[in-house]
Amino acid sequence: MKIYNKAVLPVGFLANGISAGIKRASRLDLALFYSDIPLKVSAKFTTNTLPSASVLIDKQHLRQSDYFKALIVNSGNANCFTGKQGIEDANKIIKELAKLLKTKKEAVLISSTGIIGKRLPVAKIVKTLPRLIKGLSKERVNLAKKAILTTDTFPKEITAKFRLKGKTITLCGIAKGAGMIAPNLATMLCFIFTDANITQRALNKALDIAVDNSFNCITVDGCMSTNDTLILLANGEAKNELIDIEKNFSPFLKALNTISVYLAKLIIRDAEGATKFIEIKVKEARTLKEARQVALSIANSNLFKTAMYGENPNLGRIIASIGACGIKVWEDNLKIKVSSLRKRDISVEVSLKRGDTSYTIYTADLTPEYIKINARYN
Amino acid sequence: MKIYNKAVLPVGFLANGISAGIKRASRLDLALFYSDIPLKVSAKFTTNTLPSASVLIDKQHLRQSDYFKALIVNSGNANCFTGKQGIEDANKIIKELAKLLKTKKEAVLISSTGIIGKRLPVAKIVKTLPRLIKGLSKERVNLAKKAILTTDTFPKEITAKFRLKGKTITLCGIAKGAGMIAPNLATMLCFIFTDANITQRALNKALDIAVDNSFNCITVDGCMSTNDTLILLANGEAKNELIDIEKNFSPFLKALNTISVYLAKLIIRDAEGATKFIEIKVKEARTLKEARQVALSIANSNLFKTAMYGENPNLGRIIASIGACGIKVWEDNLKIKVSSLRKRDISVEVSLKRGDTSYTIYTADLTPEYIKINARYN
Repeated sequence: MKIYNKAVLPVGFLANGISAGIKRASRLDLALFYSDIPLKVSAKFTTNTLPSASVLIDKQHLRQSDYFKALIVNSGNANCFTGKQGIEDANKIIKELAKLLKTKKEAVLISSTGIIGKRLPVAKIVKTLPRLIKGLSKERVNLAKKAILTTDTFPKEITAKFRLKGKTITLCGIAKGAGMIAPNLATMLCFIFTDANITQRALNKALDIAVDNSFNCITVDGCMSTNDTLILLANGEAKNELIDIEKNFSPFLKALNTISVYLAKLIIRDAEGATKFIEIKVKEARTLKEARQVALSIANSNLFKTAMYGENPNLGRIIASIGACGIKVWEDNLKIKVSSLRKRDISVEVSLKRGDTSYTIYTADLTPEYIKINARYN
Repeated sequence: MKIYNKAVLPVGFLANGISAGIKRASRLDLALFYSDIPLKVSAKFTTNTLPSASVLIDKQHLRQSDYFKALIVNSGNANCFTGKQGIEDANKIIKELAKLLKTKKEAVLISSTGIIGKRLPVAKIVKTLPRLIKGLSKERVNLAKKAILTTDTFPKEITAKFRLKGKTITLCGIAKGAGMIAPNLATMLCFIFTDANITQRALNKALDIAVDNSFNCITVDGCMSTNDTLILLANGEAKNELIDIEKNFSPFLKALNTISVYLAKLIIRDAEGATKFIEIKVKEARTLKEARQVALSIANSNLFKTAMYGENPNLGRIIASIGACGIKVWEDNLKIKVSSLRKRDISVEVSLKRGDTSYTIYTADLTPEYIKINARYN
């Protein structure tokens, strides 16, 4: 497998990114991804019970259609808590786009990220669609990857290529996310494009596994978004021998895993205001659930996060977080190792001596800059 | 009922506060409360599974003894995560104190607050005990109330007096707490002294009710302490007609409730780095559990708290927090009211239209000052 630290679209995919005037100051805010060859799609969405109109529509389209051709993404507006109006607004954009692309509206997916509770500027967006389509190209993924960002300070991108019986398969992933990041999923948008020839069930299974190892292992602030979306799109253009769960599955899974973990970690590296990248490994837990609970309790503790920011080796913050989980840990068995706090990358290792299960979570420190960013964001 | 915004010890109680050299720079750090008349005690402790040695010893003494005479409190050191050594250290202090006070060691209670994971300076503390005892007086509660503080910027104190069939009953409460504050209990120490003549079961029941209405309704940072302690001590010196659950109960409960709510709110007013005092009321919930879940989800959201700090009317933060609870709220039914953000006191009202249960929680904003305080605290 070869890894490239930039987005290189697989065969058959095109993209574009423009400024539609959703954000201020002509910043890129509208992206389109397109494949003329029909796409199989597997997707994950936020479990927030007040999801955005975009999430609701995508879920509906995934039930209604067995192929897809386009994905439109806007930043600067979450189209969430906008009621029936929000659904109508998104549908207007989708219908117009489907017409221009000569496809059915159910073959179009939509994602939105940004401020909650404000209407999408539908007219502005619809007006730019012809220009957005006209500019589609392989290279313009470099504009698209920027058009999906909000408080991010850099785009998150990666490409993996591997050979399968003489054919090259490409997976290309881009993501956004910096705050309102908690597991299940993390608060983010992530799109992974592949030309793999793969069955729907293999696509679904690979995504399940990859998400558990990546986006469900990161937390910035424990705040769950209304718009979390992860979409994996496959067009089969690599013309490889079919991948299924029982056949040719593991190299595809390995590539997808690599991409997902890489992007998830990048989100933490770009966490709002962060000065530290923190890996928390909980070892010797009785169950995965228990290990995860302890890791999350530490990772989401403001007192732990501020201690990390202050390079303050205050073990008490870790101890209090572990004890707050309600799991009966024996004080004498508890081992805590923290690497040097002077460095940007910090590792925390907690051994519970209760079993043999491990779990790792990634998080960032809590800084005055996080507060500055979020105090003014609107 | 008459309320005084300062600590006035009830009949028969004495107190003192000194500097024993636990904290730096000769700050007050050791307090003693004493009643020559044996005390009935009801108490609540943290549910953290890694509690301090002080919490473990108090629980043991409460099982072993049916009367108490003294309570010693140190700040600057939590005596937590100190293992068997921590228990031995605390017992050495208690034994010495019991000897000097000519009582059994099980009649002495101990509370500690401060840094986790460091040994108590036992020799220093033991050395000061004779001076601590010698200085006991009614007035020196004004030193004692300061000696229990850590990051607090002011002492929390209140006194309530009420008449019961010709006798005056006094309740006096003091508390500390500013960070690591979450419900069950809040992270704090609180001691309430009363001269009421009251049965043990009435004392317990009154405390149960008062705690649910006060200390279990506040959160600063969602971080649960290892040392939370709330002790209610009664010596019967008001010589009133006996209070029991069926008799004379309600005026006592009312006074205890008033004191508890007042102290709990003061803790939030003094929350580390806070610039806002925020009341979150969830209405029309199906159950109390649900109302509480929604209120806590909002109150513990860093994004909500930073928005409050920034006086940023970002309703999206509240919506995302509600949806993150997993409760199925209908978007059209959800009503959110937020008072003017310019003021220090902010009220947030959320109506779910799912039932008729309400719940109120108190919290503070998250500020750069909170981070500064906790980044350097050790």
